[in-house]
Amino acid sequence: MGIERLVVIGGDAAGMSAASQARRRRGEDDLEIVVIERGRFSSYSACGIPYLVSGEVDGLDALIARTPQEHRKRGMDLRMGVEAEGLDLDRREIAVRDLGTGRADRIGFDQLVLATGAVPIRPPLPGIDAPGVYGVQTLEDARELTGWLAPEHRTAVVIGGGYIGIEMAEAMVRKGLRVTVVDRSAHPMSTLDPDMGALVQEAMEGMGIEVVTGTEAREIEVVDGRASAVLTADGRFPADIVVLGLGVRPATELAREAGLPLGASGGLHTDVRMRVGSDGIWAGGDCVEVLNLVSGRRQHIALGTHANKHGRVIGTNIGGDYATFPGVVGTAVSKVCDLEIGRSGLREKDAAAAGYEFVTATIESTGRAGYYPGARSMTVKMIAERLTGRLLGVQIVGRDGAAKRIDTAAVALTHRMTVEEMTSLDLGYAPPFSPVWDPILVAARKAAQKVAEGH
Amino acid sequence: MGIERLVVIGGDAAGMSAASQARRRRGEDDLEIVVIERGRFSSYSACGIPYLVSGEVDGLDALIARTPQEHRKRGMDLRMGVEAEGLDLDRREIAVRDLGTGRADRIGFDQLVLATGAVPIRPPLPGIDAPGVYGVQTLEDARELTGWLAPEHRTAVVIGGGYIGIEMAEAMVRKGLRVTVVDRSAHPMSTLDPDMGALVQEAMEGMGIEVVTGTEAREIEVVDGRASAVLTADGRFPADIVVLGLGVRPATELAREAGLPLGASGGLHTDVRMRVGSDGIWAGGDCVEVLNLVSGRRQHIALGTHANKHGRVIGTNIGGDYATFPGVVGTAVSKVCDLEIGRSGLREKDAAAAGYEFVTATIESTGRAGYYPGARSMTVKMIAERLTGRLLGVQIVGRDGAAKRIDTAAVALTHRMTVEEMTSLDLGYAPPFSPVWDPILVAARKAAQKVAEGH
Repeated sequence: MGIERLVVIGGDAAGMSAASQARRRRGEDDLEIVVIERGRFSSYSACGIPYLVSGEVDGLDALIARTPQEHRKRGMDLRMGVEAEGLDLDRREIAVRDLGTGRADRIGFDQLVLATGAVPIRPPLPGIDAPGVYGVQTLEDARELTGWLAPEHRTAVVIGGGYIGIEMAEAMVRKGLRVTVVDRSAHPMSTLDPDMGALVQEAMEGMGIEVVTGTEAREIEVVDGRASAVLTADGRFPADIVVLGLGVRPATELAREAGLPLGASGGLHTDVRMRVGSDGIWAGGDCVEVLNLVSGRRQHIALGTHANKHGRVIGTNIGGDYATFPGVVGTAVSKVCDLEIGRSGLREKDAAAAGYEFVTATIESTGRAGYYPGARSMTVKMIAERLTGRLLGVQIVGRDGAAKRIDTAAVALTHRMTVEEMTSLDLGYAPPFSPVWDPILVAARKAAQKVAEGH
Repeated sequence: MGIERLVVIGGDAAGMSAASQARRRRGEDDLEIVVIERGRFSSYSACGIPYLVSGEVDGLDALIARTPQEHRKRGMDLRMGVEAEGLDLDRREIAVRDLGTGRADRIGFDQLVLATGAVPIRPPLPGIDAPGVYGVQTLEDARELTGWLAPEHRTAVVIGGGYIGIEMAEAMVRKGLRVTVVDRSAHPMSTLDPDMGALVQEAMEGMGIEVVTGTEAREIEVVDGRASAVLTADGRFPADIVVLGLGVRPATELAREAGLPLGASGGLHTDVRMRVGSDGIWAGGDCVEVLNLVSGRRQHIALGTHANKHGRVIGTNIGGDYATFPGVVGTAVSKVCDLEIGRSGLREKDAAAAGYEFVTATIESTGRAGYYPGARSMTVKMIAERLTGRLLGVQIVGRDGAAKRIDTAAVALTHRMTVEEMTSLDLGYAPPFSPVWDPILVAARKAAQKVAEGH
């Protein structure tokens, strides 16, 4: 038996986690690991970019968990600035090009990990490719964008009011820009139901962000070769800087051309061990779709925490052990100024689309005992199946300690708990941290009551 | 059919929750509700007393969720200052005495709720009954204690370093007293393993509390009829005020004399619907023992959040519906200065006593992404069954967001998750709230690795 070669395409969260985990289990005399990465950075936190822009995080380096040098020291042949251009499954090799020298090469593999990530959605608008229009995906984006934050640039428009769009809007307000967020939904943060999204909009407006909803960008106005405004049906919004916050799509061209299976979401379709299509081919991170354990449907969710888990599972399997990634429940947390936002499971519209009949319950509570100093309002919305009371979704908007309360809901969703069962969960209680009934329990009680009334 | 009469003994969390829930389901033409309470306050938060003492909470009234008048308006005959002296199960009546007038009476019942609470443990030490020695259980205690915090009183000793003792110590330090905590364990907060308790001790000492461990109080020195010091084998500690933080024992004299079943913990032994012994007799709150779902053993845990749940279950059942209290997993959270503490499940010694073979894993992480401003250290310890990897216990000590992370563990313990299963939990990730691997997941990974290595 010779040494096996593992090739990893993509040197960020999923790819480097897979490589590191495989290396931990198999030595260099057993497994050669080659990682190619088209960019200049490895293992960085794209989620940290808004805080770099706001100045809360100081310098790109802070967002890099491990440099290429550090990875190389751990026995991985990491080749930066190299792009995969072709994948030949029969010959088990990839065609690559060094983006610096332009030189082409081919690399054979025994095992392959596709961790090609995602790319920002760029709608085909006039002017979309003009300087001054930025995605928020790579550290290169971040560097360009922060470089553009010159004193003479005073206005910014964010197209898309999802969590990245909102975080970027807040970051630029902190830098003194006049910021408008344009979103086609009725409220920003459409990963929440509209009634909860309205609370987020209120907080955004409270910090001086102009929020224009129910409208779409039609054109980026370009003056002197640079973005100068965003045009919509509702008017013209001046923009020295335009930020694309429309989400991302999985980067799967290479895999698609090679005939690997894609799901309806556009992400690669893996099995529970993160294998895709053929033996020894693995995929993880922002380029795959994941199973939503609540809806039973597959969806594309680009999130660093999933990518890391995929990488660990892939590396463990390549290492000869058995690991699985069973799926997600759709948990996400976010922060707008001091407003904390958490969501997990299905929204009303997801539940309806999945065919559930359901009840909803929304309650107001506080994150601490009402009498404890600093107690502030928290809104929790729960969605439960009408007949059985099974928890389907939770959304939380509030202050101090609101967001991470969603984790309790995430575990409850994983275990298909009913809202009645949840009312007896033994959650932590002490006045600085919770009222005697935690807001999650208050919501569960109200939802359980609605379920009982429907019987 | 006439009107049924429900008598509730004890007008705090369990009793009033039971009464309120029953009233919500059955009108006054169907159910008469009489509540007797020996004290002067109803539905108050004993957990808030330390914050009253520290001055963070302003005035006793803030700790009262509902006054007797408010309860009466909702159709409950609440009789304050009345003590139950006897319980006759055959005649279905209780003997009561008005503590104000001294007048005795008897009250018949169809349904009875025993919510007699708990009383502070007072070891039989010389001087224990002297003025200046306080329990921390009732608002009367709180009023006396705050009244005693005169400028000429400069020193305090807390006997017992459990969470109430520590909270009281911190409160008195804030009021400018010199405070010593005397505890017989190796470290305070013995609801944690000693290695985690050591972190709590460090924080206590950091805020100027003198911590004397491995020693027991032998005597309260009394001068001029008042407490003046606590004497131990390790010396004399001056004490203008002595606070008893040795925990509580269930107040079950009445029930025991009536022949109702008590468990080994001394608490009333109820079934899952909170019935005790005979038909129509219910018990909840600090006077009962609860099933620990991890150890399979019953134990006495005095905690307002359990008492409220018991009350809701009892009231629902009396109301004609079906509700159960399945048990607890032993969750508790607490705060020492800015240090947050959470625990759930079994400690090492509990796991050993329950016959488990187990592994432990302790990790250091942060409550936010490492690069996010204000990220601070958090220590998580996990205990898992050696062979199966089943989670047995979690302890967390850290800052910003440490304590309530225990809720995730609580739900995982409820569902008997393995640490390997936990590694794929979909917990909320965003830089202000978590590293890309939440500390709970980091600990689960390490524990899973130890379990795998043991195979």
